[in-house]
Amino acid sequence: MPTAIPADSVGLVSPKVEHFAEPLALACGRTLNDYQLIYETYGELNAARSNAVLICHALSGHHHAAGFHDLNERKPGWWDSCIGPGKAIDTNRFFVVSLNNLGGCNGSTGPSSTNPLTGKPYGADFPVVTVEDWVNSQARLANVLGIEQWAAVVGGSLGGMQAMQWTMSYPERVRHCVAIASAPKLSAQNIAFNEVARQAILSDPEFHGGHFQERNVIPKRGLMLARMVGHITYLSDDAMGTKFGRGLKSEKLNYDFNSVEFQVESYLRYQGEEFSSRFDANTYLLMTKALDYFDPAAAYNDDLAKALSTAKADFCVISFTTDWRFSPERSHEIVDALMAARKNVCYLEVDAPQGHDAFLIPIPRYLQAFRGYMNRIAV
Amino acid sequence: MPTAIPADSVGLVSPKVEHFAEPLALACGRTLNDYQLIYETYGELNAARSNAVLICHALSGHHHAAGFHDLNERKPGWWDSCIGPGKAIDTNRFFVVSLNNLGGCNGSTGPSSTNPLTGKPYGADFPVVTVEDWVNSQARLANVLGIEQWAAVVGGSLGGMQAMQWTMSYPERVRHCVAIASAPKLSAQNIAFNEVARQAILSDPEFHGGHFQERNVIPKRGLMLARMVGHITYLSDDAMGTKFGRGLKSEKLNYDFNSVEFQVESYLRYQGEEFSSRFDANTYLLMTKALDYFDPAAAYNDDLAKALSTAKADFCVISFTTDWRFSPERSHEIVDALMAARKNVCYLEVDAPQGHDAFLIPIPRYLQAFRGYMNRIAV
Repeated sequence: MPTAIPADSVGLVSPKVEHFAEPLALACGRTLNDYQLIYETYGELNAARSNAVLICHALSGHHHAAGFHDLNERKPGWWDSCIGPGKAIDTNRFFVVSLNNLGGCNGSTGPSSTNPLTGKPYGADFPVVTVEDWVNSQARLANVLGIEQWAAVVGGSLGGMQAMQWTMSYPERVRHCVAIASAPKLSAQNIAFNEVARQAILSDPEFHGGHFQERNVIPKRGLMLARMVGHITYLSDDAMGTKFGRGLKSEKLNYDFNSVEFQVESYLRYQGEEFSSRFDANTYLLMTKALDYFDPAAAYNDDLAKALSTAKADFCVISFTTDWRFSPERSHEIVDALMAARKNVCYLEVDAPQGHDAFLIPIPRYLQAFRGYMNRIAV
Repeated sequence: MPTAIPADSVGLVSPKVEHFAEPLALACGRTLNDYQLIYETYGELNAARSNAVLICHALSGHHHAAGFHDLNERKPGWWDSCIGPGKAIDTNRFFVVSLNNLGGCNGSTGPSSTNPLTGKPYGADFPVVTVEDWVNSQARLANVLGIEQWAAVVGGSLGGMQAMQWTMSYPERVRHCVAIASAPKLSAQNIAFNEVARQAILSDPEFHGGHFQERNVIPKRGLMLARMVGHITYLSDDAMGTKFGRGLKSEKLNYDFNSVEFQVESYLRYQGEEFSSRFDANTYLLMTKALDYFDPAAAYNDDLAKALSTAKADFCVISFTTDWRFSPERSHEIVDALMAARKNVCYLEVDAPQGHDAFLIPIPRYLQAFRGYMNRIAV
């Protein structure tokens, strides 16, 4: 809990909910007839409606990106380090919109919502959604908010994929795309880690084919394992080494399976436990699938430059040296394609030990460059 | 099945079993009063008993390292590419001993063996064994075979740790140590991956606290997940990319959770399935613990050079460029410590795309150097 709201915070914020009754056709071939999106806004939309910035969240993210819901909230929104007055995404200049994606578990329609056809939670019957579907749903939210064109669409990791997709799906509606710690598509290794996470959830006896809510249980073990393996890929080997090394949990080794011997084991178990009690297993499956499916070059014979050729936005691409989930080489692929497609692109490779998670961390060099790029955007 | 035994094979081999009635005190504080080790030998022990080479296996390995048990065997032993007449470990020169370690599930006493105190399988009551314990048990096998001193102790990965431990536990009994794709201790990330694997097994409802055998079940899902996550760490990102890329299993995407979309998912599931039906879950737990605990420098204030100072062996250390489980940097730590301790050490970093698994693969440059080192060992 903050004793007082910091001066560079967007302060107290409240989520809003927007209902959509117009059917949304999805990439999977199915249609959502009715859905809602929960979102927050920070800053003020200017008279020209030219200063709107969309924040796209990553795998386990949500709409609460900055500020505090109340004074008892222990931590501010997940990207508070980058969103606020005077920050990289300066709310004195920008009107910032941050939503929870369709299929999420934080207030937007998703697997834990009631399926109007059955009166029960969707569970596993919720359709698989893709990055393109999300962008389409975000465009409808923009319509409702009266935002014809975003000054910028910004995201890290899976959020960066949405930012890129915006420039391809709605070229006229994005002036700038900021893709941080992202990739143009998952590698086989990325998919493999996702598959382990999915199998952990799917094989949990409490998963019940995705209809666990009706039985008042959750596939806690599976979700915990999924998060543990995910978490390892968010941190660099170095970062884990610095944070935990081979530090022991107690003074001496116990030589059994039930004791926690090393601090890193204790940390991972805690992360898994905590996550499994707050996140929906079906949403986790959906999010990993959206990651797997994203591959805009696929329709262009694997030519990413061609896929990006219709974009009208300028681009800012940022990567982190020790990120091995989406390494700098993956950002190079994006930058190379943008250059080949004759787009304006700024690229920054930040020397940072934190791995993939770096995009959430207030690293001075990163914030400076991010702020520099955002500040030069005319509104 | 080979249509005929290849000329450079050790041919048909049969395992032997040795019983030990002398109690073995273990690092965990417990004692094994009675145990057996299963092993194979290839080549002939010379009159001077100076040509014996010990092979130490890795996590899921066993005694059957070369040749065929019968003509119907689909594949030869796991290191057949390196052991045989004219091969890196030349059975025309060397007498090769390969055993299944204590705690294993291929014939040596382990969790699936009968506990003489209860008449039931040990299960989770089998004591935690360490690399040092294994080396002690291997020394007793050497005594039985009349081998006072090994010409070389050789191993990859966890096997390399045993080879190094031999030079510290029994300096007079090892002339050469060959440690391939190994590390002086696990990193926090290595331990973290092991912990995910263990939690997958421990949290499987069919694990029953390690006493699943008595209930005639196996924690198949947990073991499958453990193997899947392990398997990812054995392959390089590049190798997975080359082998599978984003290749689809069928012609088009299915957009659901139950279908296998990508080939890499299918491969991983197969690997996990296959492993879970042949490997013991308690043994898997034990092996990952032995990896975690190995840290010979710990007793010397983290000074590996000091830990290795009493060794009398010469060393050959080999690493592979794309191995990210035990990267070349981990081998550099070994080499640096050996140089600081004024030991003779040859080091080779093999440019290989296969990741950690490279040590099992007949890569020409690797085999050439390995053979070169072994050939110069006087017998």
